[in-house]
Amino acid sequence: MSEKYLIGIDIGGTSIKIGLFKEYGKLIDKWEIPTDKSNKGKSITDIKQFTDKIFEKFGRSQIIGIGIGVPGPVDRSGVVHKCVNLGWDVFPVKKEFEKIFNMPVAVENDANVAALGEMWQGSGKGRSSLVLATIGTGIGGGIVIDGKIVAGFHGSGGEIGHITVDETEKELCSCGKKGCVEQYASATGMVKFAKKLIADGNESVLKDVNVLTAKDIVIAAKNNDDVALKTINKMGWALGLALANTACVIDPEVIIIGGGVSKGGNIILEAIQKYYKKFAFHTTADTPFVTAKLGNDAGIFGAAKLLI
Amino acid sequence: MSEKYLIGIDIGGTSIKIGLFKEYGKLIDKWEIPTDKSNKGKSITDIKQFTDKIFEKFGRSQIIGIGIGVPGPVDRSGVVHKCVNLGWDVFPVKKEFEKIFNMPVAVENDANVAALGEMWQGSGKGRSSLVLATIGTGIGGGIVIDGKIVAGFHGSGGEIGHITVDETEKELCSCGKKGCVEQYASATGMVKFAKKLIADGNESVLKDVNVLTAKDIVIAAKNNDDVALKTINKMGWALGLALANTACVIDPEVIIIGGGVSKGGNIILEAIQKYYKKFAFHTTADTPFVTAKLGNDAGIFGAAKLLI
Repeated sequence: MSEKYLIGIDIGGTSIKIGLFKEYGKLIDKWEIPTDKSNKGKSITDIKQFTDKIFEKFGRSQIIGIGIGVPGPVDRSGVVHKCVNLGWDVFPVKKEFEKIFNMPVAVENDANVAALGEMWQGSGKGRSSLVLATIGTGIGGGIVIDGKIVAGFHGSGGEIGHITVDETEKELCSCGKKGCVEQYASATGMVKFAKKLIADGNESVLKDVNVLTAKDIVIAAKNNDDVALKTINKMGWALGLALANTACVIDPEVIIIGGGVSKGGNIILEAIQKYYKKFAFHTTADTPFVTAKLGNDAGIFGAAKLLI
Repeated sequence: MSEKYLIGIDIGGTSIKIGLFKEYGKLIDKWEIPTDKSNKGKSITDIKQFTDKIFEKFGRSQIIGIGIGVPGPVDRSGVVHKCVNLGWDVFPVKKEFEKIFNMPVAVENDANVAALGEMWQGSGKGRSSLVLATIGTGIGGGIVIDGKIVAGFHGSGGEIGHITVDETEKELCSCGKKGCVEQYASATGMVKFAKKLIADGNESVLKDVNVLTAKDIVIAAKNNDDVALKTINKMGWALGLALANTACVIDPEVIIIGGGVSKGGNIILEAIQKYYKKFAFHTTADTPFVTAKLGNDAGIFGAAKLLI
């Protein structure tokens, strides 16, 4: 008896990742194509040419359906409300792609889908609930409880990057609020904070770096650079506080840290955990922290899992 | 065809409430008895004498089961881990009461059960998800998503009273942390804050009140007393900030405010909403706020609902 297949698609602003999975979770093959954002994002539906080839090779009837992760809030009926990165305004993703693929389609926010992927075949495997926080250009967040994504009524479940951690902040976050976690804990926030410390006259090896990145900061911190250490401490404070407050709300079994910056390893995890423990409600203080396992593939894994 | 019955029991530190419900949610009758905490809380199981009378009158086979709300964290197997108010240490509530009642028993934390009650037959009826925050001696919290309580891995889901809102706080919360919502937004916290303002030399009608309560503060605020208004503003700031952060995590369809202090009405709701809107992520800024409907009966409603 042959197992059926699942297709998981992760639509990003730069590239579209497509994965073909066995129903039980094994990744058979994956592809990556550039995102064609022309025609107000309508050209994205051209991925049909790509999936058609998969249908041909593996047999349409053998494919259970297609799950899609998108970088924007998705409501309960599969409609995306503004997806600036793709050029979409209000776009009924589920309906449109079901028509195009002629096959069951499920749609979810990309951060939520990554969390589901980690639950299915990554660091959350076997857990009853998890929070995934990804540290990249921004702070992404996804929550899974009892195998189900907490999508939220407006599609904003797991938006932990926009938890307010500093009411006194003067500068605006990209979301329009002030004092969000993302302003201190994202790669962008870290670079900004380090630059500010240097501009304030603090000595640092980072001073002479041409285009400063979070990776430079992590390397410098491992070499005990004071500015770099302070920057990572600030990141840990913001994300640790936000995750401790998140644990007061949903009390997850495990907390997973992902995204590019998490590749920094223990120095990143320890900075977050130090403040997490300080601010956590006692019953949740020992909740384990682990790094994400699936990397950039978390999205295609989770998207495929949406179907089953 | 006769509908079956459900029994909901809400065990509190002072009294035990028992409700008999029709399966579809109608409250048929309710009783209240004092909590007998003797024998390290073991005497609480004497409620069997009471339920036996219900079994006799309505027929044991007509009763689907008994749901119980308890004032402490309950794990996934129905074991309570420390219930100071009742004298219980680690107590397998589900197992013990199933033996005693010889009938299916479900157990949950009382704040979570109240949230489920409001979802079933109260202010949350017909909603897909809700957060209930109760302002009483402490701040209680419960979350329901898609009809299910978010109990949390350690039984600490919905502990929104212990979200950290002020890192600079010097005094300890009852939980051992500093700067929890509960320290500013509970009835106890409000009285403390008002007394501090008065001790600092602020004029107030509350100065001459013998035993100051949150109710006195609400009445004085409605008469434009400055200390009372500032106290309610502080309550609104703490709870508004915590609920805005809660909405970043689970994005509920509705937020319900309950507990004794919520009887203050609009002045309480508006103070919370003012700060909620300030700190909320844009998609969740217009989430409706309503007051709880079931009052002290929310617990027996939700406990009964645990069975179905």
